[in-house]
This record gives sequence, C-alpha cells and structure tokens, in this order.
Amino acid sequence: MKSAKIINFLDSSKNKITPFSIDSVKINGFMGEYLEKMLRVTIFSQYEMLEKVGTIDNFLIASGKKEGSFKGMVFSDSDVYKWLEAASYALLFTGDRELKEKVDRTIQEIKEAQDENGYLNTYFTFERKKERWSDLATKHELYCAGHLIQAAVAHKRVTGEDTLLDVAIKFADLIANTFGPNKKRGAPGHPEIEMALVELYRETKNQKYLNLAKYFLEERGNGYASTYKFFNPEYYIDHKPFKELEEMTGHAVRMLYLCNGATDIYLETGDEEIFSTLERLWNNLITKKMYVTGGIGSRYEGEAFGEEYELPNKRAYTETCAAIASFMWNYRMFLATGEAKYVDLMELILYNGLLSGLSIDGKNYFYVNPLEDRGKHRRKSWYDCACCPPNIARTLTSFPGYMYATSKDGIYINLYEGSEANLEYKNSKVKLTQETDYPWTGKIEINISTEEDNTFNIFLRIPSWVDNFEIEVDGEKVPKNMEKGFLRIQKNWKGGHKVELGFPMTMKYIESHPFVRENIGKVAIKRGPLVYCAEKTDNKEGDVWNYIIDINGEVEEENAEIENKKIIKLKAKGCFEELKDWEEKLYTKIGSIKTDKEQIKINLIPYFAWANRSKGPMVVWLKK
Amino acid sequence: MKSAKIINFLDSSKNKITPFSIDSVKINGFMGEYLEKMLRVTIFSQYEMLEKVGTIDNFLIASGKKEGSFKGMVFSDSDVYKWLEAASYALLFTGDRELKEKVDRTIQEIKEAQDENGYLNTYFTFERKKERWSDLATKHELYCAGHLIQAAVAHKRVTGEDTLLDVAIKFADLIANTFGPNKKRGAPGHPEIEMALVELYRETKNQKYLNLAKYFLEERGNGYASTYKFFNPEYYIDHKPFKELEEMTGHAVRMLYLCNGATDIYLETGDEEIFSTLERLWNNLITKKMYVTGGIGSRYEGEAFGEEYELPNKRAYTETCAAIASFMWNYRMFLATGEAKYVDLMELILYNGLLSGLSIDGKNYFYVNPLEDRGKHRRKSWYDCACCPPNIARTLTSFPGYMYATSKDGIYINLYEGSEANLEYKNSKVKLTQETDYPWTGKIEINISTEEDNTFNIFLRIPSWVDNFEIEVDGEKVPKNMEKGFLRIQKNWKGGHKVELGFPMTMKYIESHPFVRENIGKVAIKRGPLVYCAEKTDNKEGDVWNYIIDINGEVEEENAEIENKKIIKLKAKGCFEELKDWEEKLYTKIGSIKTDKEQIKINLIPYFAWANRSKGPMVVWLKK
Repeated sequence: MKSAKIINFLDSSKNKITPFSIDSVKINGFMGEYLEKMLRVTIFSQYEMLEKVGTIDNFLIASGKKEGSFKGMVFSDSDVYKWLEAASYALLFTGDRELKEKVDRTIQEIKEAQDENGYLNTYFTFERKKERWSDLATKHELYCAGHLIQAAVAHKRVTGEDTLLDVAIKFADLIANTFGPNKKRGAPGHPEIEMALVELYRETKNQKYLNLAKYFLEERGNGYASTYKFFNPEYYIDHKPFKELEEMTGHAVRMLYLCNGATDIYLETGDEEIFSTLERLWNNLITKKMYVTGGIGSRYEGEAFGEEYELPNKRAYTETCAAIASFMWNYRMFLATGEAKYVDLMELILYNGLLSGLSIDGKNYFYVNPLEDRGKHRRKSWYDCACCPPNIARTLTSFPGYMYATSKDGIYINLYEGSEANLEYKNSKVKLTQETDYPWTGKIEINISTEEDNTFNIFLRIPSWVDNFEIEVDGEKVPKNMEKGFLRIQKNWKGGHKVELGFPMTMKYIESHPFVRENIGKVAIKRGPLVYCAEKTDNKEGDVWNYIIDINGEVEEENAEIENKKIIKLKAKGCFEELKDWEEKLYTKIGSIKTDKEQIKINLIPYFAWANRSKGPMVVWLKK
Repeated sequence: MKSAKIINFLDSSKNKITPFSIDSVKINGFMGEYLEKMLRVTIFSQYEMLEKVGTIDNFLIASGKKEGSFKGMVFSDSDVYKWLEAASYALLFTGDRELKEKVDRTIQEIKEAQDENGYLNTYFTFERKKERWSDLATKHELYCAGHLIQAAVAHKRVTGEDTLLDVAIKFADLIANTFGPNKKRGAPGHPEIEMALVELYRETKNQKYLNLAKYFLEERGNGYASTYKFFNPEYYIDHKPFKELEEMTGHAVRMLYLCNGATDIYLETGDEEIFSTLERLWNNLITKKMYVTGGIGSRYEGEAFGEEYELPNKRAYTETCAAIASFMWNYRMFLATGEAKYVDLMELILYNGLLSGLSIDGKNYFYVNPLEDRGKHRRKSWYDCACCPPNIARTLTSFPGYMYATSKDGIYINLYEGSEANLEYKNSKVKLTQETDYPWTGKIEINISTEEDNTFNIFLRIPSWVDNFEIEVDGEKVPKNMEKGFLRIQKNWKGGHKVELGFPMTMKYIESHPFVRENIGKVAIKRGPLVYCAEKTDNKEGDVWNYIIDINGEVEEENAEIENKKIIKLKAKGCFEELKDWEEKLYTKIGSIKTDKEQIKINLIPYFAWANRSKGPMVVWLKK
C-alpha cells in the first residue's frame, strides 16, 4: 500500500495548510478503539449489508450478469462508493487480503456496469436509460458520480492502482462533455460532485475538472438544481447564487456539501468572494443554527435547517451525515485559514453529534440524533436510505489524517489522541507521539524528535472550551504565544523533546441564547469536549425529563464502561418532581399541582454513548 | 326568510340536546360586533375576493359561459360553497337584497356547471373529465361535494328554496349510486362529506344518505383514502379503522372533520362504539395535543398533529380551520352528552385560537396561528389555499345558534353574550335576555319570561376556569345544583325572573405539563376565558421574548381599544434581561453573561387581538 492524504493539494503555494497522509499516524486511544472497530467489524458488516439488500447486485444487474431489477433508493450506488472509499482507507492500516479481494471484485463489477460512453448509474439502465440527466433535482446522478470519483481517488492513492480511477475519469469526462455554459445547462440537486471534481483535479492535474466544479457551483440559483417543484428552491439551495447566500437554509446535507465544494474551489482558486460567503454562512451556522452537540439541521420537514434559533431537542433531526458534512467542512475551513476555531468545531462534532451516530459495537447506526427521547429512538443495523453508515465508515477510517497538518510555519497538532506519528517536515523525518487518555483527561504528553537539526514551530490547538492551561517543554514553563487559537512553540526538535500540555478537564454548565425557547431555564453539561446526558438506565428514580440539577452542588466523577468502552460518568446533585399529579392534565393554574421534590444524584454519561444499553428516556438539557 | 338551525335532528328522541334556530337570538355584545362585521363587511369582501381570484369564474368556465381555464387549488369550489353557507346565515339577519341577488346568481352558475348526470366539480371538466373519482386521496371531490351539500341545506333552511338543494341532491344521488360496498370502493382523502350527508339525511329524511356517511366512515383504514403515496396513511387517518383509533394523528383538519362526521353518525345511530372512540380521541386531544389557546395541529409538516406534548410556540401551525373544526366537534359532543366540558372548549377555542384567525376589521385572515412570533407573521386578505376565510364566515354568522340548546329537561345557556332570545319551549314562548359585558366582566344578568305557566330547568354553564361563582334569582341566593358542569335552576318562569350570575374575572397564571418542553419555567396569562400575550407595540423596552413576569406582583387592568374594539389590557410587574451580550453567541458557560435586569410593567393584550397594530415580536408563554 502507498500512503494517502484525505486532500492532496495540487499547488500547495496557494494554500496555507496541508494535511499529512492518513497512515502516517497510528492511533491507540479513544479514537483508536473506534478505528479498530471499523477495521475489524464495521467495514465487513457494512459489505454484508450492501450485499444483503441488493446494492451490490444492482451493478451485476446493470451489466447483465444477473437477472433482476434495481433495488433501493435512486442514489444507492453511492453507498457502495462510500464503502469503497472507507475500505481503501482501511487497507492502509491492515492490508487485509480478504478486504482487498472484496474491493477488487466490487471495482470489477462497477467497471462492467459502466456504459461504453462512460455513463454509470445502475438506476438509469434498461427502460430508464432514456431518463438520464432528465431530473437533476431529485435523481442524484451527479451526486453518485461525485462519490464514485471520491472513492476512485482514495483507492488510487492507497493502492496506486488505476482500476477505479479509470472508470471515474471516463464518467467525469462524459459529464464534462455534457454539462457547461455552452452545453447542457444544469446543476446537481444534491451537491457532492463539486468537492469530488476538485479532488480529481488535484489527482490528475487536469484543469477541466476544476472548471466543471466551478461551473456547477456558479450555476446554482438559476433554477437548474430545483426543477422538481415539490420542494421549494431553498431546499436545493437554488434560491439565489451561492455568493449571495446569507443564511444556512434548506436540506442540511445539501447545504453543507455545497459549502465543502465551495471551500475546495476556494482552496484551489483563491476566489475571495467565495471565502467571504463561507465565513458569513459559518457564522450563521454556529451562532444561530447548531445544537450544543454540534449537530445541525433541526427540521424533519425536508431534513433541513430551521429558522434562526429553531432547535427543538426531542424533534431534533440532526442527521449523522450532516454532522459528518460539517466535520469535513470545518476541516477545509481550517486548511484555508489556519484558525483553530474550525478544529474546535471538528472536535465538538466528532465527540458528540457524529459519534452518537454509531453504536459502540460498531454495527448499528442513527440516522437522526435527537437531544431528548422517550426511549423509542434506537440505532438500526441499516436503513433504506443508507447514506449515514458508510459515511461514518469513511470518516472514521480516515480519522488519523485529520490529526496533524503542516504549513511553511510548522506542524499543527489539531486533535489529541494517544498516537504515534511519523511525519516529514522540511525534508527531515519528525517523530511525534502523544501519550494521553484524552478526552477523559486533559493531560497530554507529546514527544517530538527529529534526527537532524530542524527548527520549526509546533502549533498546539488550545480548545476554546479551555479557560486556562498548563504548558511545559522539557520540564520548563514556556511563554504562551497564541496564534489563531494555537499555542506556538518554536524549537530545534533534534534528539527529542517533551511537551507537556494540561487542560483542566472539569465539568461546566452551558446555557443557550434565550431565543432557543426550549432551553430557557435549562443547562447542558459538558466536560472537556464532551456533552453529557442523563439516561433512564442510570437514573432509576423518577423521570429524567423532570430532573432538576443543582448547579451549585458538587459533582463526582466515576470511571465506568459501556459495551467495554471506558467512559467517565458524572454524578451531580439534584432533585426531581413527581409527575403523578400531572396525569391527564395539560394546563393548570399555577400552584394547583404541588409536586414533591426528592433529592437525588443525577447520573450523567457522555451523549455519544447513549442508547447502547436498555431503553428509556434521555435528556441533554436539564432544568436547573 | 325562514329560520334555520345549524343542526336539525330528524328524530330528536335519539338525542339528548337540540339547538335552537340561529336567528332566534339577537346578539349585541362582544360577538355581536363580530357578527355585525361579518354582515356588513366580511361577507361582501369575501365575495369580491372569490370573483377576483377566479373561483366564481371556474363555474362559468365549466358551464361554457366563459372562456378560460380552471384557476386555484383543486378544492377551490368549496370556498364558494362555504361562502354560500355563510351568506345564507347572513340573510337570516339582514335579508339584504343585494346579498340575496349574489346568492341567487351564484347558485344559478353552480347549477349550470353541473353535469346532466349530477356530477359537479369545476376542476374535473374538459380534459380532466376522465380523471373523475380517480384520486380520492388528494383531489377533494367528495370534500367539495360535502361543502356543496352543507351550503345547500343551510340555504334551503334559510330561504325555503330548493334551487341549491336540488343541485346537491342530484350530486349526492350520483355519489350514492357510485360508491358503496357492492359498487366502487372508496373513501374521501379529506373527510367532510360525512357530516354533510348526515345533515342531508336530516333535511330529506332519506336514509340512504346516512348509510353513505356510515359507509365512508367505515371504509377508512382499508387504504381507500390514502392511495396517494407521498403522505403516509396516517396523514389521511387511513392507517386503521376509525373505531380502533387511539390518538389524534395526521392532518389536523382531516382528523377533526372525521370526528365531526363520526359524532353526527353517532347522534343519528347511537352506535356506542363510535362514541367511545370519540371520547378516547377527545381525551387524547385535550390532555396531550392542544395549545393553551385551544389551537390544534402543531406541525407544519402535513398540517398535522405532532406527537404527544409536541407543542412548539413559534412554529405552532394551529390552522384556523382546525380551531373551527374543533369548535364544531365540541358542539356535537355537547349535543351528544349535555356535558359542559365540551362547551368550555368551544369557548376557549372561540375567544382565542379561532378569533385570532380574523383581523378586527374583518378583512384579513391568519391561516396559521403561532403563539410566538418575531413580527413577521401578519394576516392576509386572501390565500391561494383559501379554506380559512369562508370557514370563519360560516362559523361567525351562525354563532347565535350555538348559544342555547334544549332538551326534555330544560334550556341550556351555553355561551354568555349580550343578547335577546325568543325561544320556544314545551309549546310556549320563552324570552331570554342577557345583559353582560362578557368576556370582559363576569357579571351576567339574565331575564327569563314566559307568558303562561311553564316550569322547567335553566342550565347555566359554569366554565371550568371559574373557581367560585355567585348566583341569585330575583335577588335571592339559590342552591348550587350542579349537573354535568351546568348549574340547574328549576322554576316557573311565568311573568319574568331575573337570574344574576357572577364569575370572578381575575387574572390567572397557567403552567403546562413538564413534557411540553418549551413551556418549562414559563407561564401563560388568562383572564376568564381569554389568553393574553405581550406584543412589542405595547412594550417598548427590551424584547418581549426575554421578559420575566413576577407572578407574585400585583396586576392592574386598563380599558383600551384596538381598532375600535374594546379590550381590557393587563399590566403585570416584571423585568427583562438585555440581550446585547448574547450577540453572536449561541452557547456559553453559565454565568459568563451578566445580564442586567430592569424592572418594568409588562403590558398584556388578549391573544385574539394581536397583530392588528404595528409589527413586532409577540409571546404568549412568558418566563417567570
């Protein structure tokens, strides 16, 4: 196996920051356990599901090797492509022969399903062949093409093989010949192909793919992406040109994938109007439309962003794919700016709204991630609309690639995780290890060494949730030189030096803007980057929905395990009100119900770990 | 003009309670002003809108008298029928010649648009003729037929003329010949025809219409009402047989119209299984799914009921038609039982969630009635989907008919309103006047007189919001004999007697079940049957969304006017928190924002009167 970066810039001079390759980092901590689960369990169980529900068979049917008709959603080809991307990353770590065979066989089936002219979509075969490119709004042809391209580029980078890349290029060329200013006009109903085309441009150095990505971005707002009238143009983010957008609206994953593509285009073109739009949208997202878990897209109606401050907890939609999309976007925004605030968001999303989408055993998934529940919402092994499971897989199998980055100024340490990295900087090898139990502890010991003299900066992200931190290098305090949210340490790292970082991992109560109407008089509980929740199974007395937390009381910590994964439980003081007198009543005169309050310990677990044990009510925002 | 009842029972022995005719009561108080507005303004301005947007023209086009094509929603014929029902009631009071001419002309156009075989729907003419009865789920043919029948029955009862009734009967006969157990199977996607058919049965004494209503009720749950697959069967209340329903679900107006029809069928058949279903659904509605304003249907998605306790305030859908449907249903439930609790609901709905649908000038309408707003939600003079305006008109023009009712035991006084009624009971005339400024005051002076000896009960509804009341008859205290929520006074009313009723019209703070998550730590303010709200235009300091009411403070009352309509304002003590430090923040560590609190008077107006002055935020549930 070769090594692979998530993003490979063609011309790094245009970019401030570039990633290291995914397999340059071996992880062994909190996220390492998840990666291990991916490599040993998830990647195989997902393939089984793809075979079982007929998604793989669609390719065999399309190529005439099997009898039958297309099964699943119109975009189900993309599930296979996302899995292939994840499987390629997995091969980086394991080189597993059985997996490699599955990958090869799958690629062969895809290749055989491709038309001679390059067209490839198993839904649009046989009698539906004549409908190709007739409904870009809802039929996801360009979306599927985008995932094919992303998978192909990942596969090429990992294996060095052109098998899938040739297929993708053939299709991309057909698309480039079909669409454009003087060709067929159109824009994808579901963005995705934009970032894929930029990556293909990075891989092949062929400018036409970047041009096509730009074309698709600029074509939005002309009605080409929203020809299907059931949803309004806002759903497709087609109500105005991209550069005029002021607010995160419409289908959340569409909106976020569009932002990803636009950031990629900015990264390669430097178009500052694109970047100022992205900043405007990012500010709107984080100040008006994001859950405390980093989840986004609050509305079931159209899987969409709500209005400003519309953040209901039980009926939070917060699709796992939207969390992933935001994670990817914030990474690109970091690459564009070197600002730690974007990585802070990645961290928040990852540990809360993203990981909640996966069961700890690695086999079950949430599509929707509510912040309150009555015990009915459970993870499933697959979905008819199976976009989320392989999206989780490709994100977690590439996780090590997100941890570090580099620029002409030095090396960025973005994410903390027990790990060993073998990097290269200014043509010399850098070994960088982290010893930490993060996110359970805020103590991180980092050892950095180069073989030769090599003076450069290490940028350590100081998360925005940290009030004060300790830093020592080789046992000595050093000045806290902060740059864009990073602590900068300049040094000649020859021979090895020890950096000791300490974040206070204490529990905090969070409150929200008074316009988030459901959270008035309530608090969320955070410890470090983790949002906590109260789940029935840990809280036998009363109903967790009616718990009141004593924000002045002492909080105890307790080591515990859920499904063999270590967690830290919190035990806060509080009380609860009995609900019995409320039975069969919805409104009463104040004071007419006298509720007894009983003193209790409120047991809290990290939000990502909920719904892994017995069913019952769960709540994030507690009455104070 | 003859006189007309809203509901005319065929065989009153089956029923406990029957209404008096609408024009037996002249009203001159709070609701009298609304009726006057209906008769002088609304009924004419609505006709103008129906002409302007082409709804009347659809009939002329259908009959070939005019060139053009169908305009508006597929069910826009029903707007004309609802207007005709309202105009017929209006004729009872005014006999206005100009209005009578409009009514006659409109009926003539309808008649000419009817097919020879009786079919009548202006959408299904010309090229769409072949699509008749092909999509009962979404095309509203039976719904429109229902409104035609209701209008025809009302028109017949008011004018004694058969012009519209003949049209309706011809169509009803076609429907009866078309649908049934051994004919074409089907059930309406939108219930409505059920209550219309029962009323046609009452008017014509022809059993087949009752049978057809029963058929349509019983056919639900077989998939005949939900053949269109975009919405799920629950949307159409077609997911299970009516008698198995446990919960108010699906499209709110559909659900409520179905309950209305089912109650009518119960009233004529005595099928107790229907009634126990209705009671179960009613309990579910009022204990889990109703706003404090009586509004229902909390979800934009499908204009539908949400889950239990899903009652967001800003994003409350609470369609005006759903409030009207609930008003009508509660009336039928009262007729079935003699229980005051149903009339209490009528009162709550009427003064709050229903009247909020109409501007005080009688010319503008809400389709959606939120309980919180940022100043953007305003009434409009008409809607593309114009179901609500004429629905309000037919309800308010028949309002006097809802005030009294009778049974073998006596006369029910359901609703309080300055008025003079000339009733008949046990073959002798009864004059009954109310002198009151209700709902502003709780003092009601009722004079009852008969010319001859006539001993019977008067049942005075004691609203459930009344904690204690005073009652005197001819200046003397009488025992408080309560029966089903009514105070019973038995007397020989010859010569005239004075009943003086006094309700304490004080302000109360209401809290809601802790599972209504948005209302935790908040109170609503009620005075008598009226729900209050704080509107920006009366509250210049700060933002009403961030007001905190002092529930122990004194509350002042003040007479005021909005658009020349008298109201009583409330002035409560409270304070507000500045929002300036929250700018550009969504979540913060508790205590990191120090908000100054400023003492203020919080000015409150009745909810029905909001959005009649300058734009600005409004809130019903205030922080306490």
